[in-house]
Amino acid sequence: MGKVFVIGIGPGEENYMTPAAKEGIISSDIIIGYKTYIDLIRPFTEGKKVIDSGMKKEIERCNLAVDLAEAGSTVALVSSGDPGIYGMAGALLEVKHERKSPIEIEVIPGVTAVSAAAAVLGAPLMHDFAVISLSDLLTDWEVIKKRLALAGEGDFVIALYNPKSKGRVTQIEEARSILLQHRKNSTPVGIVRNAKRQGEEMTITTLEEMLLHPIDMFTMVIIGNSNTLVQDGKMITPRGYHL
Amino acid sequence: MGKVFVIGIGPGEENYMTPAAKEGIISSDIIIGYKTYIDLIRPFTEGKKVIDSGMKKEIERCNLAVDLAEAGSTVALVSSGDPGIYGMAGALLEVKHERKSPIEIEVIPGVTAVSAAAAVLGAPLMHDFAVISLSDLLTDWEVIKKRLALAGEGDFVIALYNPKSKGRVTQIEEARSILLQHRKNSTPVGIVRNAKRQGEEMTITTLEEMLLHPIDMFTMVIIGNSNTLVQDGKMITPRGYHL
Ligand SMILES: C[S@@+](CC[C@H](N)C(=O)[O-])C[C@H]1O[C@@H](n2cnc3c(N)ncnc32)[C@H](O)[C@@H]1O
Ligand SMILES: C[S@@+](CC[C@H](N)C(=O)[O-])C[C@H]1O[C@@H](n2cnc3c(N)ncnc32)[C@H](O)[C@@H]1O
Repeated sequence: MGKVFVIGIGPGEENYMTPAAKEGIISSDIIIGYKTYIDLIRPFTEGKKVIDSGMKKEIERCNLAVDLAEAGSTVALVSSGDPGIYGMAGALLEVKHERKSPIEIEVIPGVTAVSAAAAVLGAPLMHDFAVISLSDLLTDWEVIKKRLALAGEGDFVIALYNPKSKGRVTQIEEARSILLQHRKNSTPVGIVRNAKRQGEEMTITTLEEMLLHPIDMFTMVIIGNSNTLVQDGKMITPRGYHL
Repeated sequence: MGKVFVIGIGPGEENYMTPAAKEGIISSDIIIGYKTYIDLIRPFTEGKKVIDSGMKKEIERCNLAVDLAEAGSTVALVSSGDPGIYGMAGALLEVKHERKSPIEIEVIPGVTAVSAAAAVLGAPLMHDFAVISLSDLLTDWEVIKKRLALAGEGDFVIALYNPKSKGRVTQIEEARSILLQHRKNSTPVGIVRNAKRQGEEMTITTLEEMLLHPIDMFTMVIIGNSNTLVQDGKMITPRGYHL
């Protein structure tokens, strides 16, 4: 009986991939993942069977991994960032359970996008924060809107994963409107594209002007709380120390 | 003019420390941090000046780092997990600004405790989640209680950092009572002590019974949302795929 490693490779730059992730890949016979992520780990996949899979085929990918492990292989299913945050860990565990498969599954955590983006911006997360995905493919948009409103009311710093894609453009506009009911126009907003990987770009703007900046599916948006400041070009949410 | 690296060393096991963290330590002349964290990185500190500092001296530690960098040293200020999540990044940036110091600061993100704990439990975070610290040293307890209530109402998965310490024992009890106003008694709760480091222990229990299990300052508590399940001994929050 084989095993599946669900591996978080971090934001993309090799320097942010943990030794555990590399070892998981190296000890596997077969590597499965979305093409972009596979490209990021080419140096470790030499001589292995590599299966590129398209987007939105999460369940097929999990079934394939379980099939291969049941046939005796060690399989690495790779996610960007941390596989436990909008990644592949949950779907794989669900598929294993559904199929009553006896294979072993090991989840290898990684540096998630919000940590990478926060490091680029300064220190926006130092206080309580809410992590919300704006993708309504699998979640009712009404539920997401309610969460945005409650996180706004609770003065949480808010990190938006999946803020926008080609087919999904109005959600970020609605999210901004909801948050403006609880936060000032001048609230700092950090936008980081490709944090800690090739093509990194960052902007610090405000809730008022955030939509003037490009946002896409490679972007993390972090909205400050009522205490968040911009100092020396860095976004900082003070924890409340007396300096 | 010197530089300060604020380094996240991950949960503790060397296998989860990124190459960037190691390089930051290796390229520094002086290492500053709380004793427990310094012990975790001994292999990389040989021949360097190491300054152990006690708990609760965050601002002194930051001032010392800035003094040493101004005198020309490269300094590593180490945090566990990710330094941007209840770590040292914010305080250091604030101290630099307050002192109008021209030193360079680089934040090196790491695998944060919630990712490590989630990997041990299965996949509890696959949906939107709120990260809340129960430490009321620097935050008004009323603010924390409000956030717990709103996160409960929003059906966020909830990750509790700093759930309990020797001098702070009632907060976790109050937090549970608040969440019981929004969630069933049977809601799955994961408790992980020393995730991904020596002494790892994990329990999956319920909101009803969670206080029967030991919780301390080395523990992460993750409270499921209304869909969270326990399957094959793993805690899973389904993302909503059709299997
Ligand atoms: C399906 S989620 C995967 C998240 C991943 N499992 C993680 O923990 O980072 C994809 C979204 O994560 C965010 N993201 C992932 N990597 C990023 C990076 N390096 N920079 C900015 N955003 C990133 C973007 O919002 C993107 O739309
Ligand atoms: C001051 S916070 C530091 C958090 C750290 N910067 C991070 O990103 O993980 C300390 C709290 O983090 C949690 N924690 C840190 N490391 C942990 C681990 N390996 N296992 C479980 N909880 C941990 C505990 O709740 C602890 O009380």
